[in-house]
Amino acid sequence: MKRSEIIKIDRENIWHPFTQMKDYENSEHVVITRGKGVKLFDIDNNYYYDTVSSWWTNVFGHGNKHISHNIRSQLNSLEHVIFAGITHPYAAKLVDLMNRFLPSELSKYFFSDNGSTSVEVALKMAFQYWQNLGKTSKTKFIFFENSYHGDTIGAVSVGGIDLYHKLYKPLMFNSHQVKSPICRQCIFRKNRFTLNGDTGCNCECIDEVERLIEDRSEEIAAVIIEPMIQCAAGMNIYNGIFLKKLRDLCTQNDIILIFDEVATGFGRTGKMFAFEHVGIIPDILCLSKGITGGFLPLALTVTTKTIYDAFYDDYFSYKTFFHGHSYTANPIACSAAVGCLENFIKKPIEKYKSGMEKLKDAAIMMSEFDFVSDVRNIGFIAAFDIINPYSGKPFPAKERVGLKIYHESLKNNLILRPLGDTIYWMLPVNIRKIDIEQIYNKTVKSIKNVIEGYSWLRS
Amino acid sequence: MKRSEIIKIDRENIWHPFTQMKDYENSEHVVITRGKGVKLFDIDNNYYYDTVSSWWTNVFGHGNKHISHNIRSQLNSLEHVIFAGITHPYAAKLVDLMNRFLPSELSKYFFSDNGSTSVEVALKMAFQYWQNLGKTSKTKFIFFENSYHGDTIGAVSVGGIDLYHKLYKPLMFNSHQVKSPICRQCIFRKNRFTLNGDTGCNCECIDEVERLIEDRSEEIAAVIIEPMIQCAAGMNIYNGIFLKKLRDLCTQNDIILIFDEVATGFGRTGKMFAFEHVGIIPDILCLSKGITGGFLPLALTVTTKTIYDAFYDDYFSYKTFFHGHSYTANPIACSAAVGCLENFIKKPIEKYKSGMEKLKDAAIMMSEFDFVSDVRNIGFIAAFDIINPYSGKPFPAKERVGLKIYHESLKNNLILRPLGDTIYWMLPVNIRKIDIEQIYNKTVKSIKNVIEGYSWLRS
Repeated sequence: MKRSEIIKIDRENIWHPFTQMKDYENSEHVVITRGKGVKLFDIDNNYYYDTVSSWWTNVFGHGNKHISHNIRSQLNSLEHVIFAGITHPYAAKLVDLMNRFLPSELSKYFFSDNGSTSVEVALKMAFQYWQNLGKTSKTKFIFFENSYHGDTIGAVSVGGIDLYHKLYKPLMFNSHQVKSPICRQCIFRKNRFTLNGDTGCNCECIDEVERLIEDRSEEIAAVIIEPMIQCAAGMNIYNGIFLKKLRDLCTQNDIILIFDEVATGFGRTGKMFAFEHVGIIPDILCLSKGITGGFLPLALTVTTKTIYDAFYDDYFSYKTFFHGHSYTANPIACSAAVGCLENFIKKPIEKYKSGMEKLKDAAIMMSEFDFVSDVRNIGFIAAFDIINPYSGKPFPAKERVGLKIYHESLKNNLILRPLGDTIYWMLPVNIRKIDIEQIYNKTVKSIKNVIEGYSWLRS
Repeated sequence: MKRSEIIKIDRENIWHPFTQMKDYENSEHVVITRGKGVKLFDIDNNYYYDTVSSWWTNVFGHGNKHISHNIRSQLNSLEHVIFAGITHPYAAKLVDLMNRFLPSELSKYFFSDNGSTSVEVALKMAFQYWQNLGKTSKTKFIFFENSYHGDTIGAVSVGGIDLYHKLYKPLMFNSHQVKSPICRQCIFRKNRFTLNGDTGCNCECIDEVERLIEDRSEEIAAVIIEPMIQCAAGMNIYNGIFLKKLRDLCTQNDIILIFDEVATGFGRTGKMFAFEHVGIIPDILCLSKGITGGFLPLALTVTTKTIYDAFYDDYFSYKTFFHGHSYTANPIACSAAVGCLENFIKKPIEKYKSGMEKLKDAAIMMSEFDFVSDVRNIGFIAAFDIINPYSGKPFPAKERVGLKIYHESLKNNLILRPLGDTIYWMLPVNIRKIDIEQIYNKTVKSIKNVIEGYSWLRS
């Protein structure tokens, strides 16, 4: 298809996700036709650095050969089969490999298709667990301000970003929202985020959720949280002590702890899973995005034998978990996921240090610009906020500075996807140092070009 | 992997969908390793007829060469890219082909990953449409008894099967459930279902939803229904006049009509889409399952320009549809879907008459057994209920006759998946007559073997 034909169809027929379509009234969507490593190429063969790993999915760069090979092989045997009453070696292989990476406590794997469904499974599982045990008062969830767990109604009900979620209030179930740990805006002034790590806090900000849990443990089924970093919130990296305390509170008060590692899993934070940073284990773990290396939709909700056993009973006890999707454990997606894990077996995440260090260096360099504030970094993620260099304050929202930087970045061979005025990079684990340098330089250039447009603010 | 290894991992680690795992305490899941046409093969090379098209997804048999070819080609260029700010020819191609099959009124395509998410998108879109227009009182949905629209909380909230949905009531939003048209149990005794078609009814059963719509149009956002056949309900095929009347009611009362064609789309009912049977057009159409020919998860929610336009505005009007999944419009899944549609262009659904006729013959033959009642058929779907041949009444639920027939069917090279005591076949469109004969014979044998176990009931 020609560029003009694609654009015509795109304009007339395609409704893009998370997009105000009117924003493209005077510009066009970029037409990407191929990818290789950290670069994407458009139909005119211009390249772009994919600094957001295509919505945080891509782990080893585009077109990873081993994953492609696995998919091709899979097509020779079985593309799909119903997963009720039937099993297949492609799911078994995947689960066998997952067992090498997860602690033995997380031993029961429920498949679905995407991050939202992995969260829906977790929520329904946690809810039904208490019902099956006869503790029927435990029906409520606790979630965190600015959290994001997906866009289906269950996931929206535990979402804390008003822009995305508030409108749907009449469709949402009632949950308890509590304040997140936001280290860079610490209200206790104990751990204002620095790149140099801990500044002596003990997560005093746990107090709100602590009081809630202790007061209402009889009605709380579960707590759901993105461990170490709230991604959609604007890459809010926080102190892991918070998670340790949360784990203790949940254990002491008979509450299920759900970790949503849809974005953080599979190496993104520098460990295979973010919870490894603090050495604790959730009761339910949600995984998707990177699980197939960024090739295909697949999700897992992993839980403990304790939770599984509460559903295991005679049929007419009506304790069955009646949940399922047609493509549950799709063999092609499983083969991609096996490829991803095999890549991590061949070269474990610990061996990708050089990219992480280079990214940290870039983050530190970025922190020296006067239009940058609150630089933060973990593993292959770095983020910072754009501020008005003349006032040191944020730009007014109506300026949409982030969006302007996005448009400018396209002219500089870069795909950024700012969250408001937060600019972030989320990179594949095998990125080369030279590519990080290029991304750094091109990002700085893009931001400077936009900021210069505001030079009148100086006066 | 060896059979024993696979079974060991399956038992220890895999939680299957819609499955009481204790039901497999004394038996094992079948280990399927490959598929070809309508047959699946286990690890010991035994074959099984896939009479349920692997949960209603498979359209052209397993291992369809053209779809496989398309996926292989796609792997040479682009496995995935973020679909916000970016478009690609693989989605454009798919949408261009879809336009050939859908009426021009359905012109706006929103991508997601599975049937549940396609429904969640439809529900949120319908809800927000009225909010964006300022008709904020229109927040409620109407759904039908025994309907099934998926397992995420939004989809569950408009689900009418108590066994799957009731438990989650505290998590569900309030909707209005109305009685379904159940022709085979017609309370007006006008159109007790027969294989010979219409018996003169005018869908008097519309009266309940008619009254509800007319009384409460100010609060109703949308009606959601599976057109022509409620599948999970036990393959409840109903008179299309009901849909025509429902369309008129929705139009007259400013209510959005959502058709969930996740199961019925892509040829399953003998037309490309079930709504073609009655020549009416919904405002929102949900598609998944067969869209990739049964290869990969992908979904579309298709709607009108009228609905789209209510979201198209300046960013700070806050009318954006903030919904999206990481793998939105995944190029590999798009390439499979393009393959599926290309198959239908090469040989349109109308040309697959012989299989449909053969299936109808098989259904008519089935209706002559004394252990069978209420045979029903549309396109490539046929279903019937198992009854006690001695009393002419259903077996008690606790006998789990359907489950027994399922286990027996495996011994006869057949995968059935009874819905309670309803046995059904849902077949690929290109199935050969000889395979339908085999499926018929093996099904009869499996049922007879189970019924014979009840011969003591005769006395």
